[in-house]
Amino acid sequence: MNDTVRLLRSHRSIRAFSGAVLDDAVVAELVSAGLCAATSSNVQATTVIRVRSEATRERIAALAGGQHHIVTAGAFLVYCADLRRAGRAAARHGAEAVVGMTEQFVIATVDVALAAQNTVVAAESLGLGVCYIGAIRNDPQTVTDLLELPDQVYPVFGLCLGEPAQDPEVKPRLPLAAVLHEERYTETTDALLAEYDDTMRTYYRTRSGGTKESSWSEEMAGLVGSERRPHMREFLARQGFTLR
Amino acid sequence: MNDTVRLLRSHRSIRAFSGAVLDDAVVAELVSAGLCAATSSNVQATTVIRVRSEATRERIAALAGGQHHIVTAGAFLVYCADLRRAGRAAARHGAEAVVGMTEQFVIATVDVALAAQNTVVAAESLGLGVCYIGAIRNDPQTVTDLLELPDQVYPVFGLCLGEPAQDPEVKPRLPLAAVLHEERYTETTDALLAEYDDTMRTYYRTRSGGTKESSWSEEMAGLVGSERRPHMREFLARQGFTLR
Repeated sequence: MNDTVRLLRSHRSIRAFSGAVLDDAVVAELVSAGLCAATSSNVQATTVIRVRSEATRERIAALAGGQHHIVTAGAFLVYCADLRRAGRAAARHGAEAVVGMTEQFVIATVDVALAAQNTVVAAESLGLGVCYIGAIRNDPQTVTDLLELPDQVYPVFGLCLGEPAQDPEVKPRLPLAAVLHEERYTETTDALLAEYDDTMRTYYRTRSGGTKESSWSEEMAGLVGSERRPHMREFLARQGFTLR
Repeated sequence: MNDTVRLLRSHRSIRAFSGAVLDDAVVAELVSAGLCAATSSNVQATTVIRVRSEATRERIAALAGGQHHIVTAGAFLVYCADLRRAGRAAARHGAEAVVGMTEQFVIATVDVALAAQNTVVAAESLGLGVCYIGAIRNDPQTVTDLLELPDQVYPVFGLCLGEPAQDPEVKPRLPLAAVLHEERYTETTDALLAEYDDTMRTYYRTRSGGTKESSWSEEMAGLVGSERRPHMREFLARQGFTLR
């Protein structure tokens, strides 16, 4: 194990920031390190929009369920999957872009996530804290309108970056045996699920300020037991991602 | 800039490996560092299948268009988006999983990409080389059959890891101005596209062994100008990802 691996293992989301604004040069460096991640056939489907306007950040914080750290982060970035730029490049070469394919959607979404994770690692290596904001997808149309996203572009998630003003524990993950399989898929056993439920129950009770009574099973019941963000399909279609 | 950022900036895909097999302990360490990445509501939708069988790797290399490094890599991993495990956990708590939502597909796909990118960074920090294999999606049904992937699980990409037996140049990325926007989406200008076309033309001509005549526009014309992997929609539906 080296320092980089130790850094990766020490990740936790930071939801309280000092309020210091990140320098443009730092943000440029972090986003640029992100772009060095692998990209499918060099399509580079990532567009990052830095939102400085407090009014816009307040709007996004509200639609994300009141996540005030979106306003107080040293930088708030919206990561967009962007096939429009590649389409414009193709047009320079006389080709018309085929749109709406499910495969393209996978390519663009994965591209964005790889770039963002590199930026996260770079930020954490500088001692900054980060928090992904998937909840911008609570109301992706408003985010799209605020940021004037055109056809063939959609907001995948937000990212808060900044000087941490809290020091939370690292959240335990599933036992490796549940996740790393040999040769073929292996159903996760009840024993492993029970083991992780216990781990998480203890974590919630004993972490600093912890009084939460929950387990992974209970969280997953809430998460996959309901129709989350049922607007996504229609929203994506409006942006030209018909997923055909 | 620190060592971690320098490491991120030095990424290139490695497609020739020494043949040395990676130790189980190293793979466990790398995959586990991957799981420490952020995950949407702690769903941890990543399942990693290590494929050792040479016959299976040969099959996958063939369907991926003859990528022989899938066979020679020190480890070959298939990254799967897995909502089945969360569904089983929910069932332990008495909830029935809602399936097929487009939002869940986005969550699971992003989760997998974040975990994989952390593993990539960890691997590169140990001096290993990596190559993502999106081309497993050329024939995702065969991969699914070979790895016995059940409903609510799909193979997102493969990942080759191993001791590099080549030392390629870092590929230049789009100018940052094309990717990092302020406050709202800004159309990439023709000047920026032309600039990057020039950069890539020079790169292809001057890299070691380089005789390729191409530009980014030309590559994108090939990429977005055709119906890539038109089977994806139907394949995903068969795995229960109906994208409704």
